[in-house]
Amino acid sequence: MNPLQRLVNAFCQLPGIGEKSATRLALFVLRDERGVGQELATALKFVKEKMRFCQECQNLTEAEFCSICLDTNRAANTICVVEDLADLLALEKTGDYKGRYHVLHGSIAPLDGIGPEEIRIRSLLERIKGGAIQEVILATNSNSTGEMTALYLKKQLGSYDVRVSRIASGIPVGGNVEHTDAQTLSRALESRREF
Amino acid sequence: MNPLQRLVNAFCQLPGIGEKSATRLALFVLRDERGVGQELATALKFVKEKMRFCQECQNLTEAEFCSICLDTNRAANTICVVEDLADLLALEKTGDYKGRYHVLHGSIAPLDGIGPEEIRIRSLLERIKGGAIQEVILATNSNSTGEMTALYLKKQLGSYDVRVSRIASGIPVGGNVEHTDAQTLSRALESRREF
Repeated sequence: MNPLQRLVNAFCQLPGIGEKSATRLALFVLRDERGVGQELATALKFVKEKMRFCQECQNLTEAEFCSICLDTNRAANTICVVEDLADLLALEKTGDYKGRYHVLHGSIAPLDGIGPEEIRIRSLLERIKGGAIQEVILATNSNSTGEMTALYLKKQLGSYDVRVSRIASGIPVGGNVEHTDAQTLSRALESRREF
Repeated sequence: MNPLQRLVNAFCQLPGIGEKSATRLALFVLRDERGVGQELATALKFVKEKMRFCQECQNLTEAEFCSICLDTNRAANTICVVEDLADLLALEKTGDYKGRYHVLHGSIAPLDGIGPEEIRIRSLLERIKGGAIQEVILATNSNSTGEMTALYLKKQLGSYDVRVSRIASGIPVGGNVEHTDAQTLSRALESRREF
């Protein structure tokens, strides 16, 4: 195969990149003289060689444990459970959470053949069994598989002496009632708080 | 720098990819188990090592001359001048053009400091001097720098015995008059043909 076509095909394998974008990217790399292509190739190699999952929380790390688990300023008795690394990064951006995480790397989706064994629930339960955890915050997505995963975890965690909470659903900050969908409004009403 | 951050930064260097998309792509590569990242890294390396520009027309090639210039079924006496490789690919997709090309790798843009010497005009004039060329089709873009480049080339080519033509501007096939901008309509009227 022509090396240009091969590069176009490789870009096409990435999510959200079609043939037209892939061709544009490949031609950009070819024409570019600042070494963008070489740097991307090196970064791709490095990330696969050097990154692995934290033994404790399954976050990405270059060492055995991730920087969050090693940070003694963060509460070791609280675990926030997320589906993906991107969710962890989004929560870290708020700067508001000072506990630890647990990354499931997926959600329970029976229709796609993904059961509790396919995601990293077992290692979460191992951490709870240790006994040092006081609260588990379920921060899975507010869609069907995320809710299903949260319900499953709630049930599993019932037999341990931990507080289980779920992040709130409601109208987004800055959003207005008129343009919020009915399901979200129902949830926002249901979860109303004393004011 | 963290290898993940390095990969995000590398993706960010590509045109049209912001930090959010770059993070999504980097996490995809990390999670992926089909070797998409490795294949992309290899393809990036190959394309830079193996591809160069055709000595004749400046198209991409793995050899000294490109497959279009070597194709004896294509008219050697007609050159279609395009700004970029992507333009050449778009024209090839029509399947209608049976001549040769010349890729300028840019357009004259004085505001960006790009003059005639910065793009591959000299090699085009060398080809014309050879004397075998009968027609030069100017297929630069229909924007200001494309038009400026076409005008410049028309002037330069005036001293040679070649026919110089310009691809037509007008309403797109399938387009309607109502939604066509005024400049395009003016051009379409001006370029009207006997019917």
